[in-house]
Amino acid sequence: MITRRIRVGPLTLGGGARPAVQTMTDTDTADVSATLAQIRGCADAGADLVRVAVPDGKAASALVRIASGSPVPVIADVHFDWRLAVRAVEAGCAGVRVNPGNLGGEAKLMRVVEACERGGACLRVGVNAGSLDREIEARLGRGPEAMCASALKETAAVEASGFRNYKVSLKASSVRDTVAAARLFARKSDVPQHLGVTEAGPLVQGIAKSAVALGILLSEGVGDTVRVSLTAPPEAEVEAALAILRAAGVGPPGLEFVSCPTCGRCKIDLPALLADVRSRLADVKAPLRVAVMGCVVNGPGEARDADLGVAGGRSRGRLFVKGRFVSELPFAELAPALESLARRVIRERGGEDAGSAPEAASREVAGPEPPGLPSGPGR
Amino acid sequence: MITRRIRVGPLTLGGGARPAVQTMTDTDTADVSATLAQIRGCADAGADLVRVAVPDGKAASALVRIASGSPVPVIADVHFDWRLAVRAVEAGCAGVRVNPGNLGGEAKLMRVVEACERGGACLRVGVNAGSLDREIEARLGRGPEAMCASALKETAAVEASGFRNYKVSLKASSVRDTVAAARLFARKSDVPQHLGVTEAGPLVQGIAKSAVALGILLSEGVGDTVRVSLTAPPEAEVEAALAILRAAGVGPPGLEFVSCPTCGRCKIDLPALLADVRSRLADVKAPLRVAVMGCVVNGPGEARDADLGVAGGRSRGRLFVKGRFVSELPFAELAPALESLARRVIRERGGEDAGSAPEAASREVAGPEPPGLPSGPGR
Repeated sequence: MITRRIRVGPLTLGGGARPAVQTMTDTDTADVSATLAQIRGCADAGADLVRVAVPDGKAASALVRIASGSPVPVIADVHFDWRLAVRAVEAGCAGVRVNPGNLGGEAKLMRVVEACERGGACLRVGVNAGSLDREIEARLGRGPEAMCASALKETAAVEASGFRNYKVSLKASSVRDTVAAARLFARKSDVPQHLGVTEAGPLVQGIAKSAVALGILLSEGVGDTVRVSLTAPPEAEVEAALAILRAAGVGPPGLEFVSCPTCGRCKIDLPALLADVRSRLADVKAPLRVAVMGCVVNGPGEARDADLGVAGGRSRGRLFVKGRFVSELPFAELAPALESLARRVIRERGGEDAGSAPEAASREVAGPEPPGLPSGPGR
Repeated sequence: MITRRIRVGPLTLGGGARPAVQTMTDTDTADVSATLAQIRGCADAGADLVRVAVPDGKAASALVRIASGSPVPVIADVHFDWRLAVRAVEAGCAGVRVNPGNLGGEAKLMRVVEACERGGACLRVGVNAGSLDREIEARLGRGPEAMCASALKETAAVEASGFRNYKVSLKASSVRDTVAAARLFARKSDVPQHLGVTEAGPLVQGIAKSAVALGILLSEGVGDTVRVSLTAPPEAEVEAALAILRAAGVGPPGLEFVSCPTCGRCKIDLPALLADVRSRLADVKAPLRVAVMGCVVNGPGEARDADLGVAGGRSRGRLFVKGRFVSELPFAELAPALESLARRVIRERGGEDAGSAPEAASREVAGPEPPGLPSGPGR
């Protein structure tokens, strides 16, 4: 089911829009400058929305400055005390997230709904396997059916009030329950869904759990915003979320690396070369597929679909563009030459991320072969 | 379709067996001691199978000692030269992987098949989007249909020879093509599949791409062995593969952390606590779900399904077992107490991973409350 469209500040979510990337600051929210610095870092990394915890009045008092200073819409994360949610909306937050299960009853949820209606804010109604409606938990347990029933009960209450600008989340720390609950809800409601596996854990496990759950759901068309919850800095959550959205085919355009895992055939320091190229191209926002391959087995052949790339040899490497050989260079010259080639490909395609001057690009890729780019279609 | 059963050394793959975890060494294969050391590290990390590149005769000559010294079955990765594959089987490798697309014709593939038949080895017939059968590529391009048609053509040739102990892989660097090709093949053949997204890239992007592709396929019952290909050490590939299998509900039992992402509500150094607890429990192989939570919002409530855990407060933390409060301790005592509790839970469940003496465990968890464990059912 295509979800309804909602708005979070200037952003449109739902209705088939690209899923938005959320993360959450881990600074003390009362520390405005630290929180704003982290929000800016997350926005630079590609976050569309940033959430901040509002556990008390001190944090709530910081929200006016945080909301007005942030480059992306700010969402207040509130538990237990509905009055903090109301203060967050009044402070200019674009959204608030509450879990009705710990807010203390429907009347209090309605006070938050009224505040969002008045302030033009977006509400997230959060359902967590760990804090379900008691009556439903007693009847249905804490599995996907109970999570979905809880979400439907809360949404019925919100709908009855006439308010429409809200989304829901159905979160569990189990991948299976997260997937099953979100699927069930999507079959029964057009309210947009925020997806996430809660408390997914340390970096590798957390990305794996989130990617499996979100990958399955997004590939089925379920999910309007996502958060990858990791015990890691929020910028890492954003990087992981973007990678998952792109892997699922619903991400924003951007830089992608096709790089080999290295093996006994690799005779160059491929991880070092990859790290160097990544850091040189960190500012690139245009869609670009760059191959960094260790040897001829997985070189130009497997990377023909890349926009450009390098295949390593013995302390040298061969650059190619769209699978066509461009030049062979010693190891130390590969990263700068790849950067120049990349900026040139983007520029010739009409992108806006070209940094180097055209002369520099031509010079640096000049090798034993003419550096001309094949004039194939862009991606 | 349930795949047929095949054997790689002492391992059974296919036929509904748990998907096996593969990785590949990045040492110089000719360096036997470095390669064996890395294989042992991968086996310790949980790899069921380890692959080594065999690009030349020097590498092939090392295989007798590598295959006999390895704690897990060794698979030789061979390109271009079928004679290296034959040598690998004769050297005692449990399997060989070739891509018929770069081997130089069916007659050469058949020489490898004969060697595997004679030596009792398992063959992997690899189909990569980058090295397809030329006739098929000319007719069908390089997409999933072409990959599946290539795989079916190769398997028909192998089947005709009477050999059955083989698997296939259909790899692309695109998640979409990998998923589509593996699905297509699984509908048409009972030959077991090795899954992987080739050249998935740097750590975060690589895990995300692999987890999305493998998560979708494994949740549909497709996949008998997996490799997560990362530009990162092979031990990291194993950790990622295990995390993906577990997330998809088909992994081996083991330790799982439910840990929160931290936010403005967290008043303890949660990443440090998590890192400490992880390193203390690194040897645990028993199934155990340990929650490491920053605050009361996501504390015992959301972690009730964990076997045990801690919820942080202001420079203190509360330990709980199956959601029941056990004791409150200062920050510095949390990690040792969690370790003791974990080993005790495993021991009382009859596991084999208990390390500390019972006295130590009882002593360390002794707090203001009696440390008795609830006697609920194990997981």
